[in-house]
Amino acid sequence: MSDPKRVYNFNAGPGVLPLDVLKQAQAELLDFKGTGMSVMEISHRSKEFESVIQTAEADLRELLNIPSNYKVLFLQGGASLQFAMLPMNLRASGSADYIVTGSWSKTAFKEAQKLGTARTAANTENTGFKSLPDKLDLDPKAAYLHFTANETIHGVEYFTEPTPPSDVALVCDASSDFISHPIDVSKYGLIYAGAQKNAGPSGVTIVIVSDNMLERTPANLPVMLDYKTLAASGSLHNTPPCFAIYMVGLVFQWAKKIGGLKEVERTNRKKAELVYHAIDDSGGFYRGHALPQARSMMNIPFRLPSEELEDTFASDAKKNDLIGLKGHRSVGGIRASVYNAMTVQGTEELVKFMREFQKQNG
Amino acid sequence: MSDPKRVYNFNAGPGVLPLDVLKQAQAELLDFKGTGMSVMEISHRSKEFESVIQTAEADLRELLNIPSNYKVLFLQGGASLQFAMLPMNLRASGSADYIVTGSWSKTAFKEAQKLGTARTAANTENTGFKSLPDKLDLDPKAAYLHFTANETIHGVEYFTEPTPPSDVALVCDASSDFISHPIDVSKYGLIYAGAQKNAGPSGVTIVIVSDNMLERTPANLPVMLDYKTLAASGSLHNTPPCFAIYMVGLVFQWAKKIGGLKEVERTNRKKAELVYHAIDDSGGFYRGHALPQARSMMNIPFRLPSEELEDTFASDAKKNDLIGLKGHRSVGGIRASVYNAMTVQGTEELVKFMREFQKQNG
Repeated sequence: MSDPKRVYNFNAGPGVLPLDVLKQAQAELLDFKGTGMSVMEISHRSKEFESVIQTAEADLRELLNIPSNYKVLFLQGGASLQFAMLPMNLRASGSADYIVTGSWSKTAFKEAQKLGTARTAANTENTGFKSLPDKLDLDPKAAYLHFTANETIHGVEYFTEPTPPSDVALVCDASSDFISHPIDVSKYGLIYAGAQKNAGPSGVTIVIVSDNMLERTPANLPVMLDYKTLAASGSLHNTPPCFAIYMVGLVFQWAKKIGGLKEVERTNRKKAELVYHAIDDSGGFYRGHALPQARSMMNIPFRLPSEELEDTFASDAKKNDLIGLKGHRSVGGIRASVYNAMTVQGTEELVKFMREFQKQNG
Repeated sequence: MSDPKRVYNFNAGPGVLPLDVLKQAQAELLDFKGTGMSVMEISHRSKEFESVIQTAEADLRELLNIPSNYKVLFLQGGASLQFAMLPMNLRASGSADYIVTGSWSKTAFKEAQKLGTARTAANTENTGFKSLPDKLDLDPKAAYLHFTANETIHGVEYFTEPTPPSDVALVCDASSDFISHPIDVSKYGLIYAGAQKNAGPSGVTIVIVSDNMLERTPANLPVMLDYKTLAASGSLHNTPPCFAIYMVGLVFQWAKKIGGLKEVERTNRKKAELVYHAIDDSGGFYRGHALPQARSMMNIPFRLPSEELEDTFASDAKKNDLIGLKGHRSVGGIRASVYNAMTVQGTEELVKFMREFQKQNG
């Protein structure tokens, strides 16, 4: 086969995947490891699939240095289903604290409110979701403190976790910066992430949960919403999303091969700096949404002098094989998502285009 | 590339997929329709993915002749999550009736009991889940009557739907015989099916629901458990399992191409008759689990004179590239699953092996 056409993919998710991962998936799609079957056709109870899911878990444990008193789950329904499972499993009759720094944490908070008591420990909406909160109003008796590590739409990211009161568990939606840099898992009660940004295709949600959090699950929850039962079955209570799990496993192997999360972070920092420098160096032609101290390494939303220019920017970029740069429909503008699998070269192509576009339209 | 090795795959699910479907997925895995991206890398809000999901829906509507007052949803969590969503959405404070004919309907009933009032309209467990019930004890005020069209483990299948009292909606778990033969959708309030038997890989659940059933969804359900919201967003409230939806779309196209569900049923009947004939013709060496009048066209569980012989059968079959014949761990024995994508030729190879095995071990 001739090499297929490939573009520079800045989609916010589902987003770019490592080319080597896609090539391996393609090569073995009809015959997985000599089984004579696709990985989509093997039983989830077979020793071949056991190896897929166990290797994926082991590699993720290695990448994130996950302590042995944590379980790793591969679930379905996206982060959005976790928004409901969290309060159902972890809150009992108490209250939970939420830090609201963008669209996603706001949505998580709303779902928690539907199901019982939730309060905001901080909310940056009235300043346009451009920053992290200066201070938190924390409930020392909260069941947990929830934050969103990276706001995909507003492009603000936590690099140091907020500190909950002692005895309050820290819970994190890590969907859009998962495995983009090392974290200290032992600080968390629970971390969850939809895979479709850095970790793989859509259709699987990864949950990392400490054993003592599992003790909170009340009796008689529906099985598919019950962390404790799902953990006890090793994510195999029912048929899991086998192909998506296989794909995240390949991505974890790729991340290990390129040097682990320290190296991934180094490259991500370099890419983000390239784009932010182009913004800061534009004399105001490009204006970043987030304040410098809260800038995401993953999603970089920015504005141009007019909406008309923004439309031209996105469509001209597309003609140059720079794809997925239109901002989220809720905020407009431009957004460049530079996930793990975006290369430095692709980022340099974007920056070159930004400079050229400004020269012609500035 | 040389042709990959392929086996005859009798797995109960995830199971065999059409070879043409796998080949197309493989060919376009790195560049979907000239986008320069994998179908896993495109945005679920792009016009390319809109076309994927809308074409999948249109093809399913054509295959099953789905009336226009029904919605088609592509969800996550498998049939097991539907076991909980059904009572949450459709029952209000009333009771629901369940026909229990095997492991899966029993599990669905248990989940419904957790969440409110459910009763059995019939239960064939004390005769070993070998038949369909002779008569039903129906509640004329039930919120719905639930049945499992095909019991994957026990191999009993409904070819004519049970008739609920007037004003009682019929709800069906069609997971393991979905699109294996035509049905009259207008008789149903809701049909759900995990894809990983006839319709595609695991990771997507198809729900076909009448518009008036959607009116029952109570306020303030978690969004991901709320049929009405999920239907209103066209299954795009959050990121759907894009690749799995793409795959079921390819399977629907394949089913149309080979002649639609009448032709699919004709072939399935032929395959099932081949295996049942080999059982009935064995002088008792092979003993089918289900009574003849309830025999599934999809899953054919049978026993041999001893467990030892059953083990030898499964392992000898495997040496002959006949895969996935070991029965479910809960009932033992042998099970041949002959889903839509299993060919007549593959079924003939199984029957040849059964005859040969009996000759040598009978």
